[in-house]
Amino acid sequence: MKKIAVLGFGTVGSGVVELFFKNRRMIEQKAGQPLELAYILDLREFPDSPYADKFVKTIDPILADPDVIVVAECMGGVDFPFSCLSRCLEKGISVATSNKELIAAKGAELLASAKAHSCNCFFEASVGGAIPIIRPIHRCLAGNDISDIYGILNGTTNFILNQMLTAQMNFEDALKMAQELGYAERDPSADVDGHDACRKICILSSLAFGSHVYPENVPTIGIRDISLEDAAQADVLDGAIKLIAFVKRLADGRILPAVMPMFVPHDNMLSRVDGVFNCVEVCADAIDKAYFCGRGAGKFPTASAVMGDIIEAVKHDKTVFSQYWEDSGTQDFLAPLSELVCGMFIRFEQPVGADAISKAYAAFAQKEAVSADISASDIACVVPAMTAAQRDALLEAFRASGLQIAHSMPVLPA
Amino acid sequence: MKKIAVLGFGTVGSGVVELFFKNRRMIEQKAGQPLELAYILDLREFPDSPYADKFVKTIDPILADPDVIVVAECMGGVDFPFSCLSRCLEKGISVATSNKELIAAKGAELLASAKAHSCNCFFEASVGGAIPIIRPIHRCLAGNDISDIYGILNGTTNFILNQMLTAQMNFEDALKMAQELGYAERDPSADVDGHDACRKICILSSLAFGSHVYPENVPTIGIRDISLEDAAQADVLDGAIKLIAFVKRLADGRILPAVMPMFVPHDNMLSRVDGVFNCVEVCADAIDKAYFCGRGAGKFPTASAVMGDIIEAVKHDKTVFSQYWEDSGTQDFLAPLSELVCGMFIRFEQPVGADAISKAYAAFAQKEAVSADISASDIACVVPAMTAAQRDALLEAFRASGLQIAHSMPVLPA
Repeated sequence: MKKIAVLGFGTVGSGVVELFFKNRRMIEQKAGQPLELAYILDLREFPDSPYADKFVKTIDPILADPDVIVVAECMGGVDFPFSCLSRCLEKGISVATSNKELIAAKGAELLASAKAHSCNCFFEASVGGAIPIIRPIHRCLAGNDISDIYGILNGTTNFILNQMLTAQMNFEDALKMAQELGYAERDPSADVDGHDACRKICILSSLAFGSHVYPENVPTIGIRDISLEDAAQADVLDGAIKLIAFVKRLADGRILPAVMPMFVPHDNMLSRVDGVFNCVEVCADAIDKAYFCGRGAGKFPTASAVMGDIIEAVKHDKTVFSQYWEDSGTQDFLAPLSELVCGMFIRFEQPVGADAISKAYAAFAQKEAVSADISASDIACVVPAMTAAQRDALLEAFRASGLQIAHSMPVLPA
Repeated sequence: MKKIAVLGFGTVGSGVVELFFKNRRMIEQKAGQPLELAYILDLREFPDSPYADKFVKTIDPILADPDVIVVAECMGGVDFPFSCLSRCLEKGISVATSNKELIAAKGAELLASAKAHSCNCFFEASVGGAIPIIRPIHRCLAGNDISDIYGILNGTTNFILNQMLTAQMNFEDALKMAQELGYAERDPSADVDGHDACRKICILSSLAFGSHVYPENVPTIGIRDISLEDAAQADVLDGAIKLIAFVKRLADGRILPAVMPMFVPHDNMLSRVDGVFNCVEVCADAIDKAYFCGRGAGKFPTASAVMGDIIEAVKHDKTVFSQYWEDSGTQDFLAPLSELVCGMFIRFEQPVGADAISKAYAAFAQKEAVSADISASDIACVVPAMTAAQRDALLEAFRASGLQIAHSMPVLPA
């Protein structure tokens, strides 16, 4: 009987183990063979666990067992899991990981090793938790030329932004509530500063465009500066502020990945994604656009994605899937944020009247020959797409007309 | 070089051909080998087509060519495509079809034949057009126990219902507009009477629960009876009327599939799916719920799904995937609509006042020991979940209190 090993018995790892035993009959049927969950690697002691007999403290017994067919990595961090998974792949054992930090940092190396050793490195759980997104992008949309991906990829920040709007909480109170509910870590930086979403858009960018995009090269702005007033005025102007992780291919073939709070108009489904849900919009030539939404984190949602990979790895243990990208040796294919053409949401320091805003904008629009299509409230406005230089010039023009700017941010590109 | 054949050069078939030549380099890269689109089967003449040299009038030359590895069927109808695809499968040639009528009627037979001849029968394009849904349900969610599926699976009816609400059109005018825009056929019955959505929920039910569900056994109600007033009052009560195709597993394991207009509360993403978009909500034990949205029809969106299947068939020409169901020889596993527990949207003939409605409901709720949680406008209300017998009794109770009922329909079950 083929064996499965799980590395890490934290939230996700224990979810994988519990899900396996809950749905074992069905999982074995889908995998086409009986399976044994034989090893759990964790340095901690779990003497009262029903799985106490399965715990090991090193990867060695797993590597030494010729029946192990797939290893699920749910530990987090980079160096130790990288070492473990590299050793698995070198022995031809397929791996499935939920570790976005690992894939964002070492994906190209792991994928190359899987290819070299005729096994698979799967990572569906690393982006969007429960949401099937890696396999759909790579396989179902394989006939498409993908141009853009926009995602709400961090449930914690989405919950916080949602609370600010619906419960009139400021950022600090909403963050505190997220921490109390267990959605945010005690050190919330990975979430609220956008690093988690950045890793995920790196993975999606690498997958969609074929070259490894490293997190340190992706402009990343978190949500600490978003105020209650921003959230409220966005709503007045028929949109919502969301932390958007995106990648957009430019006309010359370079791609522009970034993470930042954006004004999302209500006619885009992303504006309606509430609470801890995640959602990914994929734009491509044949499909136009498709949305994938679901729980982006949590024990069983993430375990579901790991289990789908485990089943796939068992069924196709001889196949190397071309879910693949390489380190291209340069990051020259990345375009800087200054090349982003988009609209802008602008909130002013105090109410100045929609007429004053529109009048100041109209003069600018005529001078710069950009669209005059603006929507304005007494204290905020949304202006149409223009270059970054034009956006800077507009802010300057507003200031010159005596309008004091409190905050501005990009509008989700169309 | 391996060859592809396309059966039918209508909207979808011509989309597949054009998409192949547009994205050929990328498609061949994903498929891992060069490919030739060698044959197009269509009885009509296309002398001016750039593909004129590829047309054939029977399946025979396709079957006789040992290099043909996959056949894409985009003809529509049942008998002729069934005969063609059966002959392909018997020769070990994989097939990919966009034909929901065919799969809903003959899926079990085609899948059995594919299994017997070690090739694949794919049908991603048969449900939800561009939306990846067949493969995600079967593969990415393979570790889950699926309990319910709710879908907006017909873009034409969704467009009509949307027009009724946003443009204050009545059903006939909205239908006429859909026909003028090319969204609805001259004979709109397959769409507006729910048959198209019915075929699609049969396919999803069969896939998720493993036994073939035939369309003639699925209660199907279309949207002809929906009035402008229904749409407007649903909006007042914080929801939208949508044609929902669904399947729900009951506690005893039987499943309850149906197609009908339903009141969908605005807190469910399905209520926000506008125009010709489709959306599928999948509920399962590990993921909670996930949504898949996109263009449900059209030349290139549907061609995208066919092309994804073609690439998969080429890459895995030896593999038989377990994307599979059987004819269980009975339809006893289907539960009747009378077992559906759900809330109800009720619109009255004339304004009676929210108080009168709430008072009449409160008396009923106390007598039947159901939840007293009701939302009411002057002329309509939404009541909480109860059995079908209770829903009938409530309508009777309302009538007995002198409230004349214009229209009632189920609320999307939670």
